[in-house]
Amino acid sequence: MLASLPRPRPVVHRHPGTRIATAGGESLLHVGTSRLESFSDGVIAVAITLLVLGISIPNPAKHESLIYQLGQQWPQYAAYVVSFVTIGIIWINHHAMITRLDRADHSILILNLLLLMTIGILPFATGVMAAYLREPQSQSLAAGVYSGAFLLMAVAFAALNRHILLARAHLLSAELSLDERRRILARSVTGLPPYVVATLLAFVSSYITLGICAAMAIFYALPVASGQGRQA
Amino acid sequence: MLASLPRPRPVVHRHPGTRIATAGGESLLHVGTSRLESFSDGVIAVAITLLVLGISIPNPAKHESLIYQLGQQWPQYAAYVVSFVTIGIIWINHHAMITRLDRADHSILILNLLLLMTIGILPFATGVMAAYLREPQSQSLAAGVYSGAFLLMAVAFAALNRHILLARAHLLSAELSLDERRRILARSVTGLPPYVVATLLAFVSSYITLGICAAMAIFYALPVASGQGRQA
Amino acid sequence: MLASLPRPRPVVHRHPGTRIATAGGESLLHVGTSRLESFSDGVIAVAITLLVLGISIPNPAKHESLIYQLGQQWPQYAAYVVSFVTIGIIWINHHAMITRLDRADHSILILNLLLLMTIGILPFATGVMAAYLREPQSQSLAAGVYSGAFLLMAVAFAALNRHILLARAHLLSAELSLDERRRILARSVTGLPPYVVATLLAFVSSYITLGICAAMAIFYALPVASGQGRQA
Amino acid sequence: MLASLPRPRPVVHRHPGTRIATAGGESLLHVGTSRLESFSDGVIAVAITLLVLGISIPNPAKHESLIYQLGQQWPQYAAYVVSFVTIGIIWINHHAMITRLDRADHSILILNLLLLMTIGILPFATGVMAAYLREPQSQSLAAGVYSGAFLLMAVAFAALNRHILLARAHLLSAELSLDERRRILARSVTGLPPYVVATLLAFVSSYITLGICAAMAIFYALPVASGQGRQA
Repeated sequence: MLASLPRPRPVVHRHPGTRIATAGGESLLHVGTSRLESFSDGVIAVAITLLVLGISIPNPAKHESLIYQLGQQWPQYAAYVVSFVTIGIIWINHHAMITRLDRADHSILILNLLLLMTIGILPFATGVMAAYLREPQSQSLAAGVYSGAFLLMAVAFAALNRHILLARAHLLSAELSLDERRRILARSVTGLPPYVVATLLAFVSSYITLGICAAMAIFYALPVASGQGRQA
Repeated sequence: MLASLPRPRPVVHRHPGTRIATAGGESLLHVGTSRLESFSDGVIAVAITLLVLGISIPNPAKHESLIYQLGQQWPQYAAYVVSFVTIGIIWINHHAMITRLDRADHSILILNLLLLMTIGILPFATGVMAAYLREPQSQSLAAGVYSGAFLLMAVAFAALNRHILLARAHLLSAELSLDERRRILARSVTGLPPYVVATLLAFVSSYITLGICAAMAIFYALPVASGQGRQA
Repeated sequence: MLASLPRPRPVVHRHPGTRIATAGGESLLHVGTSRLESFSDGVIAVAITLLVLGISIPNPAKHESLIYQLGQQWPQYAAYVVSFVTIGIIWINHHAMITRLDRADHSILILNLLLLMTIGILPFATGVMAAYLREPQSQSLAAGVYSGAFLLMAVAFAALNRHILLARAHLLSAELSLDERRRILARSVTGLPPYVVATLLAFVSSYITLGICAAMAIFYALPVASGQGRQA
Repeated sequence: MLASLPRPRPVVHRHPGTRIATAGGESLLHVGTSRLESFSDGVIAVAITLLVLGISIPNPAKHESLIYQLGQQWPQYAAYVVSFVTIGIIWINHHAMITRLDRADHSILILNLLLLMTIGILPFATGVMAAYLREPQSQSLAAGVYSGAFLLMAVAFAALNRHILLARAHLLSAELSLDERRRILARSVTGLPPYVVATLLAFVSSYITLGICAAMAIFYALPVASGQGRQA
């Protein structure tokens, strides 16, 4: 390092989260990824923790005993666990996706916002599933809402990933060949078909749908997924 | 950058978030913007995620079918989406606004707190709108509360931005000419009239108000807004 | 810097938030303040945003009009605003208090946890105040709970500040004379008497108590407080 | 600084949170611990603050006076305090555990997620305890659920700590001898037996269980625990 080169753009080092790149006189806002990450982390952390509000606290005023009431609400526990692990894995994947970025532009912020919106409704979808899992009339629709919400989230994730890898490749922090980027994207898309199947099979049985969503969560949590299937 | 300018105050590098500038013996607290950002991010992330609590989970004990109940509560979905995107865009703009600051003083912290307060009530305003959108008697008032809350938020945002750009220009991280600062501020203010109109038209129809608020959210989310209208 | 000393413990620079100081073979945990700040910010941000859940959304099924219902719940708005600004100011002061610290030890973490606990119950105390402000029988008790909760928070704050400034002065990032530390502490303690008075006067009128709490919030928000009274 | 020492891996300084270590051509994701910490902090901060929703706001429409209603719900206060301090201590310990890590891999992220899931259900377990503490029929089960949830959390914590210290020792930021690692782990495991006892004694009396859980919280909060028992 020469004395005559006093570390260009130290601003980046002082405010790692944000910076304004003024290119060619036009004021384009390029945002560092720190605050994008911290806001996304916040939304995901709140959404994942709000899931607990979907587990209703039994009421002592009711005639049923506590053990009976706790037993009756097992769909709430099942839906809680599946949703918690699924959101947690989305967080891991989101982390990997944003890590590849050096900075973000407006389009990335907006697509990320839409992704966060699909994560934000999961406490609602989880609640519908838990409430109607065993209702003969409506369980299919409830299960469809549930895995449909996961599908929507997976689509939003793949769309953002595609946008980053193909349309905004110049914002990546390391250069990746087109092949590499396509391979990462392909992994991202492999999560979609199972949710499509789960949503369709909701009209056969809500239990099958819940089972597929649970299997997806377990699969991505397993070590085997970390090298290949996950990380998209 | 000349060698004779040895970058004063390297302390910034060790504790990027906070620092105490002792000017002239008097102890004035100047706060780095990191923790201001992280607190604001937290409040905005919680507020945006709490919106989901405004979508009520249908009740299996009711006579109506799940599909009917889900259909009936479409105003909740519409209000959720519009509010989510609007808060998300405010977050993006807040980010841009704070990025310009090198450090904050007491007045900025307090005005920022008032802005956060207007964001914090949006889950309430959204809930009122969703509950009364189709009530003949009260829909106007509900829509007025809704867009009135957005208007309040936009006013608080513009007030803070004005304070930063005009009264606290010496706290900016990069020097901006008065013209530039006025242009940024003008963009910030252009968001106000549509919300005034939306609030006034609430007394014609709540649907028009919701439509204007939705159009605002879409406009600011579009790429075209990123260069000119947004980023204020 | 000699070539044989390759930058001792760069770990501190790489993980600014945390570090382990191993003094004399004994493993004492000294925690950097970054994560202490981020956790505290999180709790305070969630608590301040949960306040909105204390404003009940009017029910279209009720006979009363929306405007009547909204008007009836003005104590909820008043309590919301006072609590929001008070928590916000505590956040600013917490920020200033932690900024003085270079690192934290176990005792600071625990006292900080107790402070956060007193902040965490404010949504409850605010809800009690809002529900009973106009109840002839119980308004005194409700107002006492309300300002009592603020008093408790102010006591926890002063206790932590006293512990840091007097018992843990060696953990401060800059050396402060005993006089300076006592002056800072004195400012911290001046907030207590008004809350004692507000709590006692609750048994005269709940409105007086609310008024004193509101006056406290306004006083600390004013610029005049930033130099002298605040910042403790 | 000599010209021959060009500061290896400055990337770490630019993006302290995340980095991708590409080892031997295979793309293994190694995650810096910053964002792991910030996400965990977020979940723990939300969970600890949601506890307040378990304290119900008395209803003015009821016949009982406010003072009677407040008095009746003392189990809610007791459960709130015990759970708040317990979660707070888990946060401190989590902090110490993650501090030892230089970076995380998939298995650590997943085990951490399971730990967060056990923390996330504590508002539910706390609510059950508070609701049934004095119900003759069901208090044993409620207390068992309560301390059982703490036990589950302690097991998840010890499992993650064991995984880090024994199976992933190469990811630690400082080299620790096997003896040291075993000693740290042993401290981590000493928290389990009291919760086992508390869960078993739930079938004698819910008050004993609550007392043991409270004693655990107080013990770990005391200074004496910081050197020896805590910090696991």
